[in-house]
Amino acid sequence: MKEYTVAIVGATGLVGKEVLNILQDRKFPVKRMIPLATEESVGTIVEFGEEPLIVQRIEEDVFEAVDFAVFAATIEASEEFAPAAVRAGAIVVDNSAHFRMKSDVPLVIPEINGQQVWEHKGIIANPNCSTIQLLMALYPLDRAFGVEKVVVSTYQSVSGTGKHALQELAEQSISLLSMKEPKCEVYPKRIGFNLLPHIGDFDQNGYSEEERKLRLETRKIMNRDDIRISPTCVRVPVFNCHSQSLNITLKSSATRKQVHDALSEFPGVEVWDALSLDGERKEHDEESELYPVPSECTDRDEVFVGRIRLDDTASSGVCFWSVMDNLRKGAALNAVQILELLT
Amino acid sequence: MKEYTVAIVGATGLVGKEVLNILQDRKFPVKRMIPLATEESVGTIVEFGEEPLIVQRIEEDVFEAVDFAVFAATIEASEEFAPAAVRAGAIVVDNSAHFRMKSDVPLVIPEINGQQVWEHKGIIANPNCSTIQLLMALYPLDRAFGVEKVVVSTYQSVSGTGKHALQELAEQSISLLSMKEPKCEVYPKRIGFNLLPHIGDFDQNGYSEEERKLRLETRKIMNRDDIRISPTCVRVPVFNCHSQSLNITLKSSATRKQVHDALSEFPGVEVWDALSLDGERKEHDEESELYPVPSECTDRDEVFVGRIRLDDTASSGVCFWSVMDNLRKGAALNAVQILELLT
Repeated sequence: MKEYTVAIVGATGLVGKEVLNILQDRKFPVKRMIPLATEESVGTIVEFGEEPLIVQRIEEDVFEAVDFAVFAATIEASEEFAPAAVRAGAIVVDNSAHFRMKSDVPLVIPEINGQQVWEHKGIIANPNCSTIQLLMALYPLDRAFGVEKVVVSTYQSVSGTGKHALQELAEQSISLLSMKEPKCEVYPKRIGFNLLPHIGDFDQNGYSEEERKLRLETRKIMNRDDIRISPTCVRVPVFNCHSQSLNITLKSSATRKQVHDALSEFPGVEVWDALSLDGERKEHDEESELYPVPSECTDRDEVFVGRIRLDDTASSGVCFWSVMDNLRKGAALNAVQILELLT
Repeated sequence: MKEYTVAIVGATGLVGKEVLNILQDRKFPVKRMIPLATEESVGTIVEFGEEPLIVQRIEEDVFEAVDFAVFAATIEASEEFAPAAVRAGAIVVDNSAHFRMKSDVPLVIPEINGQQVWEHKGIIANPNCSTIQLLMALYPLDRAFGVEKVVVSTYQSVSGTGKHALQELAEQSISLLSMKEPKCEVYPKRIGFNLLPHIGDFDQNGYSEEERKLRLETRKIMNRDDIRISPTCVRVPVFNCHSQSLNITLKSSATRKQVHDALSEFPGVEVWDALSLDGERKEHDEESELYPVPSECTDRDEVFVGRIRLDDTASSGVCFWSVMDNLRKGAALNAVQILELLT
């Protein structure tokens, strides 16, 4: 079996570490692993399986023998170094927003448009976490019933922002529980026991960057300009796992069971809903608590869907709730799945 | 000026205490204040202004000279004792769900259907907190542009559940930050750093009790069976203040400014939005942070609205975000406003 030299840019970050774990867990054929970082983390140790590796400084000439480079650092790092990696002959899977909307860069969710990896010109972009979560549930419904419109409200964890945000949520929580004034460094307002309907800059229409990403990336991945998405993105005081509340207008009507089945048959989606218990109805209490929550979906690979309800205010509408580990399928796992397609 | 004898049932609860504070703050003409509670809290002291009062046991004959009785305890307490209060000649304002949907009980938000207090037969019901928050924003838009449909996702604080829930959120947060297993007593799953899309029992269609309340109470208060509401209700790890993400389909289209103005002109609504700064544009950073969050709306009387955006996926749609202190306008303040209408 062919083995590959893989570089991870941002190897000490939350996503970078998760990429290392997942490559190991899924036995990706690695010949040599090169963890890279900018200034701050150079010289620190990361683990790849049992093996401790010293993080090296990212520089233009470091990609010489690299087959695959996963970028999981800043947008600036991708902008500066991804072209150098491509020139050196590596295929780049980039988790930043920098290349996502460029017309010659495929934007790929393997379960949905995996075949597009072969259209790459050196760079393949990993979609935004919220887009991946939305489309993993939307795509099977679009295939089965046609999707006209989606109203989505997000409940996004702080791990999507990075390590400093985990620390800020923990420290602010401790301060507030001790009746002390919390310090705000990562977010514009306090996130501890609070909500921030503000993820990225607002445009002149009042939409945030995260909301714009959801729309634009969806159109590109689904290759449909007519899909109508109305998003509201909100940061919540949860360490890990994003959640979404969805109201979807379908082209043709469907029963709850049909929606349940279309979702649960799709690879990478798992349905946790009272409907899943058909045929072996459990006690009321057990049954009513079958829905996904962040605390139960962390470190899991799937997008979990529950609370499936018909929207009886629409001729063919459906509502549901989804939860996804944003560091895994929302970032690191999706990137590794792209690598797997390329091998 | 006439002065009244007022009884507060559940005077030691979060809502009861807030009723005491608000009656004092708004200088409600109280001749005598009678704090009542069931077993557990009898004999404890509550404060009405500077005055310490001993909490008395609720019994059928305690309402003899009472003009107004505010019930802010359990649904069982309302069921058992509200009829006795009415028989004794008191007018009851009930914060529980028990009487809300009864046809001979007015369900009142003073700014919206205040005149209906005069239709009471002894009992006036206070709507559910989420209904009040929704309708305070919906009603002015319905008057100005007509509302066809609302998709609403809630982000509800734990104070709506009561004192024990505040404690559970604090204790679970401390446990989790100390790497200990959190104890779950109030909610079916952990709420600390987690989300629960589960507020009240689920019906056979998959909707929760809180979601059903939003629909049924809205129809009664707006006196419109044709208003279409698609709700998803979620408990979030926030101590106080409920938030809502709304997507509204209007009958006639409106500009962002028209929506802003219709909302900000309505009594009890305050708009915090970049649009509010028109004419005196502030620095970009300041401006972009003008939106309501729970930490800034607690102890405030208004329903705060921000993030106003046109939904360009609909011919006449609008999205926004609202935050409300659920103990004040969502419960205690609304009840006191009803009392004020009756004096």
